[in-house]
Amino acid sequence: MATLINEGKAKQLFETDDENVIRVHYLNQATALNGKRKEHVDDKGIVNNQIDCLIYNYLGQQGIPTHFIKQLSESDQLVKKMTMLPLEVVIRNRASGSFQRKFDTEYLASFDEPVQEFFYKSDRLDDPFINDSQIHALKIATKDQLKLVREQALKVNDALQALFDKAGITLVDFKLEFGFDADGNLILGDEISPDSCRLVDAKTHDSLDKDVFRKHTGDVMTGYRTVLARLQTTVQ
Amino acid sequence: MATLINEGKAKQLFETDDENVIRVHYLNQATALNGKRKEHVDDKGIVNNQIDCLIYNYLGQQGIPTHFIKQLSESDQLVKKMTMLPLEVVIRNRASGSFQRKFDTEYLASFDEPVQEFFYKSDRLDDPFINDSQIHALKIATKDQLKLVREQALKVNDALQALFDKAGITLVDFKLEFGFDADGNLILGDEISPDSCRLVDAKTHDSLDKDVFRKHTGDVMTGYRTVLARLQTTVQ
Repeated sequence: MATLINEGKAKQLFETDDENVIRVHYLNQATALNGKRKEHVDDKGIVNNQIDCLIYNYLGQQGIPTHFIKQLSESDQLVKKMTMLPLEVVIRNRASGSFQRKFDTEYLASFDEPVQEFFYKSDRLDDPFINDSQIHALKIATKDQLKLVREQALKVNDALQALFDKAGITLVDFKLEFGFDADGNLILGDEISPDSCRLVDAKTHDSLDKDVFRKHTGDVMTGYRTVLARLQTTVQ
Repeated sequence: MATLINEGKAKQLFETDDENVIRVHYLNQATALNGKRKEHVDDKGIVNNQIDCLIYNYLGQQGIPTHFIKQLSESDQLVKKMTMLPLEVVIRNRASGSFQRKFDTEYLASFDEPVQEFFYKSDRLDDPFINDSQIHALKIATKDQLKLVREQALKVNDALQALFDKAGITLVDFKLEFGFDADGNLILGDEISPDSCRLVDAKTHDSLDKDVFRKHTGDVMTGYRTVLARLQTTVQ
């Protein structure tokens, strides 16, 4: 039996024969309110694993270094073991979510340049919003590391925007996490899916992401399945 | 009678014969909780005006462009009329206040470099903490303006640290505001006093600022008078 290393909100991580490789198993589970609300959702793991694998394959083709190795099955994939930076990097192309609430802007208002935000991953501190200067003061990342994270995150944004545009989907905002592989290279890790991206239909602005679950506005899987089907057509 | 332009938490602003010049009258008033708690404090206006004039005279000597013109009396001074940037710039040399609460650090922990924070001045939004990217997205300031604000704020920090060090006082953190004079020059404005700086005795770490009032730990004027007396000795 493979040893379970960690169980997250929607994924289980297992050891493999290679100490630097992890098997990720996507669960049929959705959470909100930082895990306080948790529900079983049929097929969610299968759909999200396929979306994530498709996106990571694509990002690899675009020359972005990531943790992704290969898809194993509908629900499982292999990734590099990483030492994560305790930062969530949020990139916003349109106003929504916490940005819209905080600054009382119009929903989906666009920006001259993508907005970049960092949040310090700390359950104890409730993942506070943090700026570059605070990150340095608390020695969370060096200036060079933060510069590279920012550059890579904006490259990922350019690549994802191009991909989703072709699929008729507007990439409103998304969250990334970075870390170091066994050789100390800074690479992109963690899931990229409608759980971590805010996605709306480019024409109707219908929500195709976890906001449907967060806000109880319908069947969350309708949007997730639309995203997968459109991306599959796009990359063919 | 001079026309009152604006009344703040601890100051009144009056018109003068010159439309680009304002008379500032310091009130014997202390506030906390963003103005919700307000009390009369004997001599506070006189002491703060004298501290502020002394500091602005000093900053002018250090080549920092400011709104300050001259002291008129114990409680009054003349300043340039400004169009303010809606930003509070906070510089921290040691951990205290909201930084310490947010990141649960040791009181007065020091940093490799000063921490720089911006807050968006908006009563409606409750002055949210904001990063550079959000400032640009909301068109609050241009990149060049923000770069200049940051450079000037760090220069002010160097100058103030040198001044307070000589007075046996540790400059823990402080708040600055910048804006434009009638010619469009970016200059430093607003009050600099124990109302806007966190100051502790370098040896005993006794609080010499508004925290005494905020936390009800004693007579706030004892600290303010100490700051004035020590600064007066220092600049002589």
